[in-house]
Amino acid sequence: MTEIDVKQKVLAANAAAAAGLRETFARTGTLVVNLISSPGSGKTTLLEKTVAVLKGSLSLGGLEGDIATERDAERLRKMGIPARQILTGGSCHLDARQVERALADEGGRLSNLDILFIENVGNLICPTSYDLGEDFKIVLLSVTEGEDKPFKYPAIFSKAAVTVVTKIDLLPYVPFDLAAVREQVATLAPDGRLVEVSATSGAGMDAWLSLLTDALAKKRAGVPAAGVAS
Amino acid sequence: MTEIDVKQKVLAANAAAAAGLRETFARTGTLVVNLISSPGSGKTTLLEKTVAVLKGSLSLGGLEGDIATERDAERLRKMGIPARQILTGGSCHLDARQVERALADEGGRLSNLDILFIENVGNLICPTSYDLGEDFKIVLLSVTEGEDKPFKYPAIFSKAAVTVVTKIDLLPYVPFDLAAVREQVATLAPDGRLVEVSATSGAGMDAWLSLLTDALAKKRAGVPAAGVAS
Repeated sequence: MTEIDVKQKVLAANAAAAAGLRETFARTGTLVVNLISSPGSGKTTLLEKTVAVLKGSLSLGGLEGDIATERDAERLRKMGIPARQILTGGSCHLDARQVERALADEGGRLSNLDILFIENVGNLICPTSYDLGEDFKIVLLSVTEGEDKPFKYPAIFSKAAVTVVTKIDLLPYVPFDLAAVREQVATLAPDGRLVEVSATSGAGMDAWLSLLTDALAKKRAGVPAAGVAS
Repeated sequence: MTEIDVKQKVLAANAAAAAGLRETFARTGTLVVNLISSPGSGKTTLLEKTVAVLKGSLSLGGLEGDIATERDAERLRKMGIPARQILTGGSCHLDARQVERALADEGGRLSNLDILFIENVGNLICPTSYDLGEDFKIVLLSVTEGEDKPFKYPAIFSKAAVTVVTKIDLLPYVPFDLAAVREQVATLAPDGRLVEVSATSGAGMDAWLSLLTDALAKKRAGVPAAGVAS
């Protein structure tokens, strides 16, 4: 087998596992989102703030992918929701079988929720190819990373149904052309949604939270959300 | 062949190519550094400021790894040095054969310099395993990414001889525990160097530039630099 054959075999096995997960989540009515970004774009902080608002009315859980440390799962557990760390053993992305095993190990605690947040390994490249059975992918880009990133990492910005521009409270202190990012995202994901938030100041959080609760309502009603396909 | 066999074969081929590059650069006396970080940590901006100071006295060049766009090579060429973009075709890291081919295609313009900067694909994971024939690896971490990153990505922070904490002009506006980062880096790379810079304000740039020129002087004198091994 060549390198390419092996990659295709791995992706086929992943797709089969992801299809099984998607069936499970269709049965339980759980909205599953797969959050992808560079290290340090603010995935966990956004989730902390999201959980603080939504946990009163919805059942939530988290699966946290990392190379090392239990830190992110601990941060979500401190917010009062079940969360499990998946250590990938050096791999630069989560795969669907790791998600399957984690759900089985949790004995149902993460399988029957309103929303399951899957926080992928911090990486803008590798997670793009691995379906985890999610309803849709969400890519985060912090304003400190520079406005050239969507065109530099076109695969993830094309595949994500939602782009979240984070840390907008830092806009006064960094050179960042928000209009350029909006244009690039519109080119790469014409049916996608873009929201701009600061988890620190709270700016934009309403639009972000509505996006999640609307997607959950649509899933429960059997309506495919526009621009939100995996 | 299993997935692991294929990976080992790929790494063995890479190691052979890297050894050839290292011989070439030993002959030409070129200091080669391999810069690795998350997308948006400020690799290209740091190189622009470095080139502005050093190009008067040293011959410099750049190899820029990306998934897409020629943008980074253009930025370095605008600074008045030869630079070539390597598009990796979706791969999350540069490999030594890509470097070989790029040098050959440039017909010697990038092979016989004082310092060759190799800017890897924006990624804290994949580039770690691929020797490019460099004298040492440099990992960058911007203060906006959070202080938990060295322990979350221990492989690269262990392997890099130099850690550069970037964007320190933003310290007043972000929660970032610099002491915690210093401790983690000291644990992971006890012989490594750590410098803290702002390419925007110029803070720390002297230490960074001295580190490069000292390493070049040592290479030319045949002295292996302490804590600077590939």
